[in-house]
Amino acid sequence: MTFPVVGMVGGGQLARMTHEAGIPLGIRFKLLSDTPQDSAAQVVSDVVIGDYRDLDTLRDFARGCDVITFDHEHVPTEHLRALEADGIPVRPGPDALVHAQDKGVMRARLDAIGVPCPRHRIVSDPADVAAFAAEGLGEGAGGAEGDGFPVVLKTVRGGYDGKGVWVVDNVAQAEEPFRAGVPVLAEEKVDFVRELAANVVRSPHGQAVAYPVVESQQVNGVCDTVIAPAPDLDQGLALKAEEMALSIAKELDVIGHLAVELFQTRDGRILVNELAMRPHNSGHWSMDGAITSQFANHVRAVLDLPLGDPRPRATWTVMVNVLGGDYPDMYSAYLHCMARDPQLKIHMYGKDVKPGRKVGHVNTYGDDLDDVLERARHAAGYLRGTITE
Amino acid sequence: MTFPVVGMVGGGQLARMTHEAGIPLGIRFKLLSDTPQDSAAQVVSDVVIGDYRDLDTLRDFARGCDVITFDHEHVPTEHLRALEADGIPVRPGPDALVHAQDKGVMRARLDAIGVPCPRHRIVSDPADVAAFAAEGLGEGAGGAEGDGFPVVLKTVRGGYDGKGVWVVDNVAQAEEPFRAGVPVLAEEKVDFVRELAANVVRSPHGQAVAYPVVESQQVNGVCDTVIAPAPDLDQGLALKAEEMALSIAKELDVIGHLAVELFQTRDGRILVNELAMRPHNSGHWSMDGAITSQFANHVRAVLDLPLGDPRPRATWTVMVNVLGGDYPDMYSAYLHCMARDPQLKIHMYGKDVKPGRKVGHVNTYGDDLDDVLERARHAAGYLRGTITE
Repeated sequence: MTFPVVGMVGGGQLARMTHEAGIPLGIRFKLLSDTPQDSAAQVVSDVVIGDYRDLDTLRDFARGCDVITFDHEHVPTEHLRALEADGIPVRPGPDALVHAQDKGVMRARLDAIGVPCPRHRIVSDPADVAAFAAEGLGEGAGGAEGDGFPVVLKTVRGGYDGKGVWVVDNVAQAEEPFRAGVPVLAEEKVDFVRELAANVVRSPHGQAVAYPVVESQQVNGVCDTVIAPAPDLDQGLALKAEEMALSIAKELDVIGHLAVELFQTRDGRILVNELAMRPHNSGHWSMDGAITSQFANHVRAVLDLPLGDPRPRATWTVMVNVLGGDYPDMYSAYLHCMARDPQLKIHMYGKDVKPGRKVGHVNTYGDDLDDVLERARHAAGYLRGTITE
Repeated sequence: MTFPVVGMVGGGQLARMTHEAGIPLGIRFKLLSDTPQDSAAQVVSDVVIGDYRDLDTLRDFARGCDVITFDHEHVPTEHLRALEADGIPVRPGPDALVHAQDKGVMRARLDAIGVPCPRHRIVSDPADVAAFAAEGLGEGAGGAEGDGFPVVLKTVRGGYDGKGVWVVDNVAQAEEPFRAGVPVLAEEKVDFVRELAANVVRSPHGQAVAYPVVESQQVNGVCDTVIAPAPDLDQGLALKAEEMALSIAKELDVIGHLAVELFQTRDGRILVNELAMRPHNSGHWSMDGAITSQFANHVRAVLDLPLGDPRPRATWTVMVNVLGGDYPDMYSAYLHCMARDPQLKIHMYGKDVKPGRKVGHVNTYGDDLDDVLERARHAAGYLRGTITE
């Protein structure tokens, strides 16, 4: 058999679910994981324990892999280039991945290809932030009033799930982000009505598929609920979002899954918030809600296999993240949720419960959005312990 | 976390697919496999290589498992009793499993609980077979004419996929089955219009779910195509088959998945052909065609978790087995099948290709049965190499 070996760097839940999707495809999976307890390491046969920041470890791991892909975006760019120089296909490649690693590079590139973004600029100190804020005054619909605050500040590298992001109301609050000594990007605080995500998958051949645009609801900077497709979304705007994501994937030469997180503004525009070049939380609904899941299509893409149909199987699919609550053991709640709703699709990541930590998600689907939402929210809340009846 | 550990004895594709179904459930999976190359051993983290016929090996393996279940029915009954005596739940238990291991015990028990079976009797030699054949003469619709042949002979233990089964036309042909020196069961050759299968899952609580009755088409004694639900099946007969399977599960105290293979006779009856107490080929359609797959429900049942909804997600789902053909490498055919049909669901087992060996299956679903059948058959034929365009 010449069925290939996919080398996955990173042992988190995205790797776990990618392995799950790779099993029916007959794909051999090799994992580089920090510890044997990591989410994916619990379920994969061929696991190497090691540090992805160490080039020798990466090189040893890559031997025998037909392609390398990622659970996260933290592998140093120079290491990816070294693997490529060794002749190992790295997908997405370093030239694409840098746009998901460095928000400054990402903004500059999206500007260059004409993709609408929030107003933004690399800032050097709190005074520069105040200047950036003032620049936004009087710009019409997108502009701020008064002193131009609030402003969003982000470290250009290393942030996720609300970490490395600050919303500052004045110049005094703008000091904190500079303490780490890394470059800081200032962005206008967008007056959005909701957040959307456009998920696409692209192969080296250039084949690409677009999932329906979803609505993504955040709580405290962390994705809470995803509704597929986004309710009441104007068809023209949906098409524009899909085309924008496909265009970004092509222009940046993304291979694999690309999530484009979007703001839908009060005045009817869509602006790019973030990019992720791997299966993404906003695509977890596809595991039970689409003909081909984002994980299966990511595997197919990095192997340059023909892509699967991304269309939905149900009128509505809802995903709600399960966060850790105060109780370390979810098993009895899990049992209760299964009994309450035999149609519920639970996805647990095998992670120890810590308050606020993503330890799983639930998917529900059906024709009645209110019912589908209630079932998913009830299950997630019950598992977390915030709902007790 | 008190999420339990399921110990799976046997490393074949059923174990592989059960592990796949267990990942989202957050269930820890431990595998006892003959070799590291076995289908399931390729994809499971916690694998013990050993011989299931050795009690010490089984006992060592069972330590740390919350429950033991099976990929096959070949574990000696006395070993299962020993594990139970050690305090390890074995599901299905030995008293149930013996009915799937020994066709003589199965027939006697089904007779006792009034489940309709083909006419049958344990036979001792070819002359006894001739006597059995003659006994069927003049019995009306089910009876044979002339000398009463053909007759079906089966070794009571060890047969599967047509192995250990003979259809004999005369007394001379009846010698072969006795050569192994094991008990032989004679059965009337049923005049059936088609084969059906009723799949149910039952938990220790006594909760049980029934999948829709499917049509199962065999080629050379091996399952080839399954159509869910069985087309043009009288609703009364479908209900009768589901009730029969639920009743067998209850009477035999089956825990986990039970497949009841049935003959639908020309005169409108259903007779039990075989029982299997594990996920079954006739239930593979459920991976893509049901709200909850047979594998997920088997895991839930053996852990005494509430069962998932077994109802279909599509009007029609078709499964066709992929058998090995003359070409050892299916990868290019696999690529072609994905390109031809982006909705195709391929399930490869990671097995070396040998002519006639089950190496995977494909599922298709949709509203138009002809289309769904054509797509599945084309893909399976192309993978095998019997279709080249």
